[in-house]
Amino acid sequence: MSVVPVSEAERVALQALRRAGAPEEAARTQVGLLLEAELRGVPSHGLLRLPRLIRRIHNGVANPAATGQHEWRAPGMLSVNGENGLGPVVALAALEAVKPRARELGVAVAAISNSNHLGMLAWYAEQVAADGLALIALTTSEALVHPWGGRRALVGTNPIAVGAPTGGRPFVMDTATGVVSMGKIHDHANRGAPLEPGWALDAEGRPTTNAEAAKAGAIAPFGGAKGYALGLAFELLVAGLTGSALGDAVKGTLDDDAVCNKGDLFIVLDAGLAAGEGRLAAYLDLIRESPPAEGFDTVRIPGDRAHQVRAGRLESGLPIADEVWLQLQALAEGAVHEETVP
Amino acid sequence: MSVVPVSEAERVALQALRRAGAPEEAARTQVGLLLEAELRGVPSHGLLRLPRLIRRIHNGVANPAATGQHEWRAPGMLSVNGENGLGPVVALAALEAVKPRARELGVAVAAISNSNHLGMLAWYAEQVAADGLALIALTTSEALVHPWGGRRALVGTNPIAVGAPTGGRPFVMDTATGVVSMGKIHDHANRGAPLEPGWALDAEGRPTTNAEAAKAGAIAPFGGAKGYALGLAFELLVAGLTGSALGDAVKGTLDDDAVCNKGDLFIVLDAGLAAGEGRLAAYLDLIRESPPAEGFDTVRIPGDRAHQVRAGRLESGLPIADEVWLQLQALAEGAVHEETVP
Repeated sequence: MSVVPVSEAERVALQALRRAGAPEEAARTQVGLLLEAELRGVPSHGLLRLPRLIRRIHNGVANPAATGQHEWRAPGMLSVNGENGLGPVVALAALEAVKPRARELGVAVAAISNSNHLGMLAWYAEQVAADGLALIALTTSEALVHPWGGRRALVGTNPIAVGAPTGGRPFVMDTATGVVSMGKIHDHANRGAPLEPGWALDAEGRPTTNAEAAKAGAIAPFGGAKGYALGLAFELLVAGLTGSALGDAVKGTLDDDAVCNKGDLFIVLDAGLAAGEGRLAAYLDLIRESPPAEGFDTVRIPGDRAHQVRAGRLESGLPIADEVWLQLQALAEGAVHEETVP
Repeated sequence: MSVVPVSEAERVALQALRRAGAPEEAARTQVGLLLEAELRGVPSHGLLRLPRLIRRIHNGVANPAATGQHEWRAPGMLSVNGENGLGPVVALAALEAVKPRARELGVAVAAISNSNHLGMLAWYAEQVAADGLALIALTTSEALVHPWGGRRALVGTNPIAVGAPTGGRPFVMDTATGVVSMGKIHDHANRGAPLEPGWALDAEGRPTTNAEAAKAGAIAPFGGAKGYALGLAFELLVAGLTGSALGDAVKGTLDDDAVCNKGDLFIVLDAGLAAGEGRLAAYLDLIRESPPAEGFDTVRIPGDRAHQVRAGRLESGLPIADEVWLQLQALAEGAVHEETVP
């Protein structure tokens, strides 16, 4: 593990993306997103994603110059063909188009297809909430989660993020509908650590605590039947409104060479009634100040821990896995892309 | 337990509501909702709610003649003052106003305050989806759920329902963000049955399996920190957009005499891309036909079981607890309302 100053990580990551042909603004957007994940302690959505994204650019399935084709299907419904663009570049352009409509109409939606991995949804939720609007963000993924009562991975990890202005710091939550991420399964496999019971099935659909076996299997939905119902609902809403692929037909966020055919849905709401009042912030503080349960030092609001971690890492730097950091430095110097392209 | 033909339950429930002063159409809407809950095997949201609602009418905190005052805050954002109306009466009137706007704008929202208990959200999701639109429905409740890591009930059970057209039978899911309902805790207490570990805390915030102790305590969020984050997000979205009360200031769905100050949020989306294609229905069938896990006879889609139960009960009648049925019959005959009013 290297501890890298944020500015140094930024410089190297930007250079790697520029060298892959990304325009300056697109590179800054993509790197900004990945750095925020590192800052908040979510390395699964951080810089380790960049080498794959660069391979995808070289393979022609990610176009760093694309910002998405916009078509207003209706005054409050923006349909975006991402044209294989970078996820955050296409998404921010869509949000910029949708936000004024949400202010005008009270609500507006961006339905995005054909765009690359969005990364950490909290990033979008926080930006929209900081603008005084509420956001419900949904996106789909490769099928990694089994239906409740099923054996095979047929549902995406389908995260939801919600951002809301509170009168104080925006409220931001962001959670996948799988009980854990496939990244965490891989991490356990790499360390030879067992999984917790209930996390995963093996390739035959049998419960397993063997992380290596789970890599070829399926992750459980969080909270059993309830989390399954949510993940499936998000799969249908996203696919229904964006035309994206469903279930195990989804590709392109975990591989180097398939067009990314998942979808992204942003619902932006004018949070007028809440704005500025401070009533929501006071409620959140009341929860924070309530007595913690045995084994907890404090009661947290979603995002509190990330906020703390972020403050620390801005000071002390980003802990980055050595192999990721070496790979990024090599990509920035143009030394290795030949060998990393499959 | 009595088994009552649906038509007989309907006749008695309608008569009880008419006698309490409900206009014919409002009575039919309210009873239709409660009967659908009974038909689907969700008695916690069925006829047992009616005696309380009638007491609330007598106490002046439920007005069966109100349909809600509509104010368009923006072209796609309907603000509804429910004027203490019956939950489903106010909600259906709001949805009727919002649906054409959703078709025109692509999306439209109803933000409802000052209305009584909505009942089973699936009912609304199914109706909207049957009209070819998608619905995300959120509502808040009395604070019954503890924050993850907290001791006190400070968050509502805050359910979400999603309805979506599929090309076949509409997809409908409906789940609260508590791990169980307070109704289930009461049911266990009545039967002297222990709770499952992890379901609830007692009044001091200690984990308990004693249902009687849990009645004065708090329910756990489903799926731990993830379900807590969702429930809290829904609390903020609903309160932010409707101006409804927050946390333990919410009253009026479990008592006889407090104005109901929770809020309801309906986001209606033009599901244009999905309509008629059958692609979503085919995906759901693929899940249904996938191999079930050990201990499951089949893989279900949310709503499948309710659909099956409904078909059976239409044939065989509704199993209704004797005390509920006797109370309803007495209310229909005008014999007991004096003694049931506190």
